[in-house]
Amino acid sequence: MNSSLIVVKIGGGDGMNYEAIAHDAAQLWQDGTPLILVHGGNAELNRVAEQLGHPPQFLKHPNGMTSRLTDRRALEIFEMVYCGLVNKRLVERLQAAGANAIGLSGLDGQLLRGRRKTAVKYVENDKIKIHRGDYTGSVESVKETLLMTLLESGFLPVLTPPALSHEYEAINVDGDQIAALIARTMQASALVLLSNVPGLLARYPDESSLIRHIPASRVEQTLEIAQERMKKKALSAAEAIQAGVKKVIFADGRVDNPLQRALAGEGTVIE
Amino acid sequence: MNSSLIVVKIGGGDGMNYEAIAHDAAQLWQDGTPLILVHGGNAELNRVAEQLGHPPQFLKHPNGMTSRLTDRRALEIFEMVYCGLVNKRLVERLQAAGANAIGLSGLDGQLLRGRRKTAVKYVENDKIKIHRGDYTGSVESVKETLLMTLLESGFLPVLTPPALSHEYEAINVDGDQIAALIARTMQASALVLLSNVPGLLARYPDESSLIRHIPASRVEQTLEIAQERMKKKALSAAEAIQAGVKKVIFADGRVDNPLQRALAGEGTVIE
Repeated sequence: MNSSLIVVKIGGGDGMNYEAIAHDAAQLWQDGTPLILVHGGNAELNRVAEQLGHPPQFLKHPNGMTSRLTDRRALEIFEMVYCGLVNKRLVERLQAAGANAIGLSGLDGQLLRGRRKTAVKYVENDKIKIHRGDYTGSVESVKETLLMTLLESGFLPVLTPPALSHEYEAINVDGDQIAALIARTMQASALVLLSNVPGLLARYPDESSLIRHIPASRVEQTLEIAQERMKKKALSAAEAIQAGVKKVIFADGRVDNPLQRALAGEGTVIE
Repeated sequence: MNSSLIVVKIGGGDGMNYEAIAHDAAQLWQDGTPLILVHGGNAELNRVAEQLGHPPQFLKHPNGMTSRLTDRRALEIFEMVYCGLVNKRLVERLQAAGANAIGLSGLDGQLLRGRRKTAVKYVENDKIKIHRGDYTGSVESVKETLLMTLLESGFLPVLTPPALSHEYEAINVDGDQIAALIARTMQASALVLLSNVPGLLARYPDESSLIRHIPASRVEQTLEIAQERMKKKALSAAEAIQAGVKKVIFADGRVDNPLQRALAGEGTVIE
């Protein structure tokens, strides 16, 4: 792939400035920078799931991470929010800002394939239990040819979970992992992870404790620093760097010109 | 376009057999028939809109037709149901049935452009009034090159409203009109309109009054026969026939092998 490719993950927390992100992304796209966007939708999903009477449930894993319990109904609501509400909102804003965006889920054209974990271990009352029948998993491969065709035809891909399992089921997979996998597979020049904090924080949630720079050789360090939802992002970042992505930037998606600022070095830069 | 192209509109009423439709469509696709699917989602939309506390509202027009009132919130819910729930359900089932489906809305890649009607005339208490600020409109053009690229690359396009207005806003446009426009633009060999009735009925809703055949020269007749929601379908059918589409079939989407049956001549055939 063109080594100037930039992959941007747009986090799904509250407070993200979609208007500013769309404007910045359209500007980059118009300047000829190959760009792929991947987005989340967590906060909207929690609200819509509550409204639809199927409130979100989370499982705490033995390794300390948490994940969303996704039964079939939760998967439908997930698709409504991610593929419908958030994806089309972004595509519409990008189109209005002058970029010919095209929104796809991992199901479409088998863009993202992954492994379904039907049995998920979780911790309850200090005991390890097993939840079965879940529609979650991990993304394993990306159909690079489809993305290349879209980029070469002048489109700006806007991607979202779910992915397609090997048994052809929709599965909820992590958006940060998707972005990192694409950056690795296509050897992107940079992976930008926009969320509703300024970057990696030494003393979360104290925003004044922002870490400005981490050398690639010490990327493992991010895993120790990162807390809460940042842990998954840090893991994806470390994998990307180890697989040859030159630069990973954790940056603030709430501000004006969030992409320009991130690429200028604001936030936490790992390189 | 290849004159063997078949365009299928999958209606959004209750009782549609999505599993059977996906199976039939995948079979045709595997046999090498160029195929484009367009779907609705009315019944699901009404339910979800109720559940989300923003119940559907309809406007009755001076010409007797009705249309859905679409404010910004209604448009968001529309996108959740059409682009999220229904589109991805179809794509997932088609993938499982062996067809490499790719789901797109009219916003994506500017696939469907249309004219927004911000001011909509409607009838209330026998008076004509004007509703402003609506996100509805009519579809005017389809980006044929994008569809050709997808077909030639071996994908099965699964399309849904909204379309993109000339001012780059998402607008709710009629799915039957989309299907008819694509059939006309790409000179399809057949346009199949699957819904939850057996076809055009002389005495709606009496299903035993099915009309089996209407010669193309008398297509205007369908406009007199058609009632309720069938009126819009009949209008789209007449336009398609007049623009050179050889065959339009109104058929039952609730049965097993709905596409095979329709193409074998069950339902109402206009040719």
